[in-house]
Amino acid sequence: MKILRTCTGLAGTALLLATAGASAAPSEAPTAIILSAPASSAAAAAEQGDDIAWSIVEDLTTEIGPRMAGTEAESAARRWAMSRLKSMGFFNVREERFDMPVWVRGTEEAWLTDPFLPQKLTIAALGNSASTGPNGIEGTIAAFASFDELAAASDDEVKGRIVFVDNQMEPTQDGSGYGYYGRGRFNGPNVAAKKGAKAIVIRSIGTDSHRNPHTGVTSFDAGVKPIPAGALSNPDADQLVRQWNRTQTGAAADQLQIKLVLTPQNLGTKQSGNVIAEVPGSDPAASPVIIACHLDSWDLGTGAIDDAAGCGIITAAAKHVMTASQPRRTIRILWAGAEEVGVFGGKAYFDAHGKEKHAVALESDFGADRVWRIDFKLPDSAKALSDRIAAAVMPFGVVRGRQPANGGADIGALVQAGVPAIDLAQDGTRYFDIHHTPDDTLDKVDPAQLRQNVVVWTAVLAILANSSDSELP
Amino acid sequence: MKILRTCTGLAGTALLLATAGASAAPSEAPTAIILSAPASSAAAAAEQGDDIAWSIVEDLTTEIGPRMAGTEAESAARRWAMSRLKSMGFFNVREERFDMPVWVRGTEEAWLTDPFLPQKLTIAALGNSASTGPNGIEGTIAAFASFDELAAASDDEVKGRIVFVDNQMEPTQDGSGYGYYGRGRFNGPNVAAKKGAKAIVIRSIGTDSHRNPHTGVTSFDAGVKPIPAGALSNPDADQLVRQWNRTQTGAAADQLQIKLVLTPQNLGTKQSGNVIAEVPGSDPAASPVIIACHLDSWDLGTGAIDDAAGCGIITAAAKHVMTASQPRRTIRILWAGAEEVGVFGGKAYFDAHGKEKHAVALESDFGADRVWRIDFKLPDSAKALSDRIAAAVMPFGVVRGRQPANGGADIGALVQAGVPAIDLAQDGTRYFDIHHTPDDTLDKVDPAQLRQNVVVWTAVLAILANSSDSELP
Repeated sequence: MKILRTCTGLAGTALLLATAGASAAPSEAPTAIILSAPASSAAAAAEQGDDIAWSIVEDLTTEIGPRMAGTEAESAARRWAMSRLKSMGFFNVREERFDMPVWVRGTEEAWLTDPFLPQKLTIAALGNSASTGPNGIEGTIAAFASFDELAAASDDEVKGRIVFVDNQMEPTQDGSGYGYYGRGRFNGPNVAAKKGAKAIVIRSIGTDSHRNPHTGVTSFDAGVKPIPAGALSNPDADQLVRQWNRTQTGAAADQLQIKLVLTPQNLGTKQSGNVIAEVPGSDPAASPVIIACHLDSWDLGTGAIDDAAGCGIITAAAKHVMTASQPRRTIRILWAGAEEVGVFGGKAYFDAHGKEKHAVALESDFGADRVWRIDFKLPDSAKALSDRIAAAVMPFGVVRGRQPANGGADIGALVQAGVPAIDLAQDGTRYFDIHHTPDDTLDKVDPAQLRQNVVVWTAVLAILANSSDSELP
Repeated sequence: MKILRTCTGLAGTALLLATAGASAAPSEAPTAIILSAPASSAAAAAEQGDDIAWSIVEDLTTEIGPRMAGTEAESAARRWAMSRLKSMGFFNVREERFDMPVWVRGTEEAWLTDPFLPQKLTIAALGNSASTGPNGIEGTIAAFASFDELAAASDDEVKGRIVFVDNQMEPTQDGSGYGYYGRGRFNGPNVAAKKGAKAIVIRSIGTDSHRNPHTGVTSFDAGVKPIPAGALSNPDADQLVRQWNRTQTGAAADQLQIKLVLTPQNLGTKQSGNVIAEVPGSDPAASPVIIACHLDSWDLGTGAIDDAAGCGIITAAAKHVMTASQPRRTIRILWAGAEEVGVFGGKAYFDAHGKEKHAVALESDFGADRVWRIDFKLPDSAKALSDRIAAAVMPFGVVRGRQPANGGADIGALVQAGVPAIDLAQDGTRYFDIHHTPDDTLDKVDPAQLRQNVVVWTAVLAILANSSDSELP
């Protein structure tokens, strides 16, 4: 059955698109759109004013707050998640535990000590940073304009120094700056350690101008002894650079000093876990659609945009599809544990379920701002399916992209193994203002854009969960 | 001599006004403006691209940084200021010291401890807060929606509790929200202490959504024993309110617990000082024009907008006037000490100089955003003078206000005693996003708007410094 639906229900979305300045919005509003029945009824339900996603984000961030992987807080979040998913009427709600190494933050302080008056800086240790010990360390700065400049430096320029890596990340809608600028964090400490640095501080991998540093994980090659590694907020990095520029000549040449006190700890192996819930499909032989988010968060904020929002979005969409009518395929919801510190939950899911057949995998882990683009990585048999999906989301301001879908961290191993994927790409323009900072709190979530995510996800999920075996594996 | 000046030099300002969305900008740009010679030549010099104000703000915030009243940092800032003002060619550069009581920040931590999982909050002690001692205190919250609600509460509702005062400040262009919402900070701790509270935390008096609390001074009536008093950032206050709303009924009713560790110290009487410099007038019998800013800052940021910017603006304007031609009246520049913690510098100036005649007083202490309005409090004899000044600043997007000038903190005693005053009111729309937070750093200063301030101040100062004795006292 096909139904014709007028566009009145889109008023809120149209307003949202206008205020979000969406260049992708059609210049002439469509007067009617056609969806298949389950997709349209579910999406219509979502449009009535979804508050499921918001309530998940609000409740999780208020009642649990920060949920550092492998800690009691993450464990409490899993108990909360099990209870919430059961009470929402999902099936097969379960916890799948796994072991992981746990790193936790300690004291973190930094000062520019000389040749100017001592000035305190805001700093956050990077995940896997070594400790300076409680008395800290002090040293002469060796500053590099970029990760590439550090990588090209001789050992002599680095040895015994405290390295600083500057590189100001610029915002991009698709978040593509992260991989490029992020190398300073992902690999800067490893490279500095190999060249004999005492410690490293980097300019935060972030696009804001607030005194809130961006944490995030770093890693050291096997055999490389970790060094203390921290990120300064952008204004603090600016200050260091100004002082650096004033100490390159004259009596103060090469004398810019920094003191660091970072006392993180490795707590050894602890337990984390994935929480899984399902909407059972009517055809038990059909492979499931898997949708993922992550339940853990960094410890500085309450993990509202990263990634309570993702869990809210995918779960609200699954609930709307379930309420509209039983889908043919099972929808499996994965709230992964321990994503931030090394995608341990995604790996554990793959170890346990990687050999099972999955029809398609999707993940929401890029904030709460609107979906602006859809990308596919589907088998050739799914050409008509992808056209149907692109047409269904177009009225909500979603452009069809021309590049293959990436998947996401927690479904990365599945996608790597050949599971089809779709990306509902969110607008990342302001994501890296907040990402991994104390500022990742509920007030940063825009309810209108969050709802647009739910509507788009619901439309896509309803079509996927009712797709045929000739379209998806 | 009158000169006719074309408007081409205003291109930068016009662009500034357009980008600042100035509704006050005339809908038809004037094709020419007429200024008296010293005013126009000085203002024209300022328009050529003033970098004096910027260099003062950059150098002071980079080389000295935070300048808490009565500390070594403020003393270093005075030495820096003396050197800078002398090197700029000003006359009679001098320090005028005074004694003051000094309060300094210690550790500051807070947690919501129960009935939910413990969550850390960002907090800053208010100036004059008592200490909790190093082990902190824990207590049950008594929350009030506003200062008025706290003031109306019975002692029983407060006694032995840790009071929370909520009141979300909204931005206003003229900053008028500060006095109204600010009562929670100015007087909340005093009222809570009188009613027997153990401590008080307030929602920051600020308009932003970042995890950076707004400090500021509070005061207790004589005979009232100070209690620990801190401000939470807006997102943290939101979180407290959400938890509060979830603990008003059922088993958790009235059980919301908070723990505070605030260890500020009173260091007793120390020295602060004002730094004064002059542009000597050609007529030694004429009373001086006094222009003021403050050199001290809160300790959390580097005091870029509060108030390095003010010192940069007034000093650049005086320099431009001095360079153009010697004015008839002396211009006296006051970089006041110890404003933030109780206007000790302004009082000391008045004690030392209050009996001298002053022609008119002006102060810049409201950030670095553009001047949008001019207000006068001048004698009747100055009617033509005020018309001349209003006409001179109109092309820069400055509206003539209809209320009397207030003056400012450091010139407050002078104005109270009858010295005429002019307010060059700055746009305060975003001022309270940053005010008294760690985010008060150089990157928050918009060079284009800073320059507009200098141009407007230069035009006004040149006219005032050449005003006649029949116009001003």
